[in-house]
Amino acid sequence: MGRRRFLQAGVGALGLAPLVATGTHAAWTRTPGAPFSNYGQPAASESGVIRWISANADVPGNGVSWTPLQDLVGTLTPAGLHFERHHNGVPRIDPALHTLTLHGRDARATRWTVAKLLRYPLVSRQLFIECGGNSNSGWLQEPPQAAVGWLHGLVSCSEWSGVPLSLLLEEAGVARRHGWLIAEGSDAFGLHMSLPLEKAFDDCFIGLYQNGERLRPENGYPMRLIVPGWEGVLHVKWLTRLEVADVPAMSRNETARYTELLPGGRARQFSFFMEAKSLITRPTLGDALAPGDYVDIAGIAWSGRGRIRRVEVSVDAGRSWQDAELQSPVLPLCFTRFRRPWRWDGRRAVLQSRATDATGYVQPAREALLAARGRWGYFHYNAVVSWAVDEDGFISHVYV
Amino acid sequence: MGRRRFLQAGVGALGLAPLVATGTHAAWTRTPGAPFSNYGQPAASESGVIRWISANADVPGNGVSWTPLQDLVGTLTPAGLHFERHHNGVPRIDPALHTLTLHGRDARATRWTVAKLLRYPLVSRQLFIECGGNSNSGWLQEPPQAAVGWLHGLVSCSEWSGVPLSLLLEEAGVARRHGWLIAEGSDAFGLHMSLPLEKAFDDCFIGLYQNGERLRPENGYPMRLIVPGWEGVLHVKWLTRLEVADVPAMSRNETARYTELLPGGRARQFSFFMEAKSLITRPTLGDALAPGDYVDIAGIAWSGRGRIRRVEVSVDAGRSWQDAELQSPVLPLCFTRFRRPWRWDGRRAVLQSRATDATGYVQPAREALLAARGRWGYFHYNAVVSWAVDEDGFISHVYV
Repeated sequence: MGRRRFLQAGVGALGLAPLVATGTHAAWTRTPGAPFSNYGQPAASESGVIRWISANADVPGNGVSWTPLQDLVGTLTPAGLHFERHHNGVPRIDPALHTLTLHGRDARATRWTVAKLLRYPLVSRQLFIECGGNSNSGWLQEPPQAAVGWLHGLVSCSEWSGVPLSLLLEEAGVARRHGWLIAEGSDAFGLHMSLPLEKAFDDCFIGLYQNGERLRPENGYPMRLIVPGWEGVLHVKWLTRLEVADVPAMSRNETARYTELLPGGRARQFSFFMEAKSLITRPTLGDALAPGDYVDIAGIAWSGRGRIRRVEVSVDAGRSWQDAELQSPVLPLCFTRFRRPWRWDGRRAVLQSRATDATGYVQPAREALLAARGRWGYFHYNAVVSWAVDEDGFISHVYV
Repeated sequence: MGRRRFLQAGVGALGLAPLVATGTHAAWTRTPGAPFSNYGQPAASESGVIRWISANADVPGNGVSWTPLQDLVGTLTPAGLHFERHHNGVPRIDPALHTLTLHGRDARATRWTVAKLLRYPLVSRQLFIECGGNSNSGWLQEPPQAAVGWLHGLVSCSEWSGVPLSLLLEEAGVARRHGWLIAEGSDAFGLHMSLPLEKAFDDCFIGLYQNGERLRPENGYPMRLIVPGWEGVLHVKWLTRLEVADVPAMSRNETARYTELLPGGRARQFSFFMEAKSLITRPTLGDALAPGDYVDIAGIAWSGRGRIRRVEVSVDAGRSWQDAELQSPVLPLCFTRFRRPWRWDGRRAVLQSRATDATGYVQPAREALLAARGRWGYFHYNAVVSWAVDEDGFISHVYV
C-alpha cells in the first residue's frame, strides 16, 4: 500500500517524455578517470559528512565527536564516523609493546600480547555502542535546534570481532561467577570501570576488529572491551588490565559521574543497560517539505535489552500511532531501521517515533522520563524525540 | 569441546605468575594523546593492510585491486578495502549533474536526479559482491604462492542501501516482466551490461549508500546497480541509464568476455549466479605453525543462491571432513564466517574448506570443476582451495 501511494504521488519523475536518452554523455566520461587506490576515501563532494567535535578547550583531548546520523542510511556506521569520547586524547599505541593483563582475586595472573590474542578463537557481532551521556540535551528547558546527529549521535553501530572474555577468565582459572571485574585503559587518563563478573562471563569480548579491519586508534586500537548492550563508558578503549575483585573500583566515572540523584532522595548507580530508544533521522531539522510531498519517515531504533520488537510513528504529536515497517534482519543489540511512508498535507505536524523492545519495554514520552528522573538527571536520556513541520514545510526540534 | 581443548593446550598464557600488574604504565600514557578527528583513519601500524593493485600498464585505470582477506575478520569489508574493477579509471562525478534515465520498450522515459532518488524509500541489505573473474588463477597449471586476498580477494561484503529498482520500473509504467534491462555506466569506458527484467523486478536496487555512508567513488558514486548474488560486472557503477529491451545488448563483456567454451563444443553465456564458495583465511600462506599449536581454522563462505547451510573442514586433503561452526546470523547472499579448532601434530597436513548452500549445491573439488569446465575456463572459478602445512610448519598453496 505504501508503495502504491508513493507511486501515485509521482514524487520522482520529471514528467519529460520521451527523453533523448543517449548522446548526452557527461564531461567526466571523456577522459580516463583516477587510478586505483590502496585504501579508498569518501567522495570529495561528501566532505561535509563528518563527525562534529565538541571538545573541552581546557583539557587536551577531552570531549566528544558525534556521528552524523542525519547523513547515514543503513544499520552500520563507517569506522571513520563512529562517535568518539576521549578523556585525554587518542594514544598512539605500539601494538608490539601493548599487553593485556588479567589478575586479582582467585585469578592466576596472566598476560597476553596482541599477537597472541589475534590467534585465539574470534567471535563477531553487530552491536551498537551508545554513550551514557547521549541525548542529554533533552534535559535542557528549551529544545536545541541542531541536526539529529549533533543531539543524539553519541551512538554508532559496528560489527565487532574479538576474543570471548570467558575464554581468558577460564584460562586464568577464574571459577567464581560473582563479584566484579575492573577494566583499565592505557591512555593518559587511565579510565577505570567496573562491571559484574557475571556479565563478563556472559557475552563480553576483547574487541580487536571493527567492521572487518583492526580497530581504529580512536576506537581503542589495539583492543577495547566490548560489553554488549551496556553503556559506552564500559567499553574501555586501549584496554590493558582486567582485575577480578570483590567490590567495584568506585572510580570517578562510577561515582562523581554516572550516578544520579532521583526524586525522593534515592540515587541511580551502575545503571548499565541502554534502554530502548528510537530516532527519526529523516525528514528532520534541515529538511524542508512542500505540500503534497510523499516522504518516508525513517530512522533507527535499538535496545540494550535485546531485539527491537516494534517501532510506531506518530505525525500528530503522539495522539495516534501507526506501526512502522522494520528492515530485516532485526538483530539483537543492533540498530534496526524503520520506515513509514507519509504524505504531508501542508498543515502543521509533529513527527515522533516510539520503540518497544523484546522485553515489552516502551520508550517513554519526555514528560514521563523527566517525572521519573527529576531535575538532576543527566545520563541515559531515551525519551521520544519530536520534530515539528510548520506551515511552510520547515522542520524544527520541539518538546511536546 | 573446542573451547576446552583450546584451554588445555594453553596457547595463550605466558605462564608468568604472579605478575606485577600495576606500576608499569606505557610511554603513551604519560602525555595527552592526539585530538579528535572529523573522519577517522586506520592506525599507522596497520598501513600494510591495503588493496593490492594489478593494473594494466597499457590502458589508464584498467585492472583490479584486491581485498586483503588474509587481514580481515568478520563478515563485512571496510569500504576503503572493497575490491575494485575499473576499465578506464574512476570518474569524478558531480552529483548535482548526474542523472539516471530509464527508457526503452514499453517504458515511459523517466529521469531522476540524485537528490530526487535520495528521497525515495530506501532498503538495506548486507550482500557480497564477487567479480566473475575472481580466483581465476585456479586455472593455472601450478598453484601460485600468494596471500589468500591476492588470489581470491575480488570479493567483498557490505551493507548496501538504495531504492528498489521495481519502484522505478513501475513509475516508468513498465508492466512486462519478460525481456531485458540494459544498464550503462557513466565512466570513460561506458560499460553496458544486460540482465533479465525478471531479476530487475525481483530484488535489484539502485545502491546509494555503502556501510552506512554514501558510496565511495571507486564503488560507483553517486550510484550503482545492485544485483544480489549475481556476478560483480552486473553491479554497474556510476549508473546513468537503464534501457528496457527485447534482447540483451550483446556487449563486449557478455560476448568476448564472460562467455566460455565448454568441453564438447557448447558455450556458457549469461552465467550470472555466483555459486557457493568458501576460503580458509587463517591459517594460510604467510602463517607458520609450531608442533602442538592450537589454531582456529577459520574463513568465509558465501553463495549467490541463498544462505550457506554448511561448511566442512578437512585437514587431510579431503579424505575426511568435519563440520565447522558457523557464526550467526547466517544471512542470505552475505559472507558467513566459519571456524573449527585444530591442533597441529607436527606432521604434513592439507587444509581445505567446502561450502554447501541452501539449495544443496556443494562447492566442487578442483579436479571436478576443471573436468566440467575444460581448458577454456576463466570465469566463475569456485573450487575447493588447499593449503599445505609442511613438516616445518610453513604453509603453501597446493593443488590436490
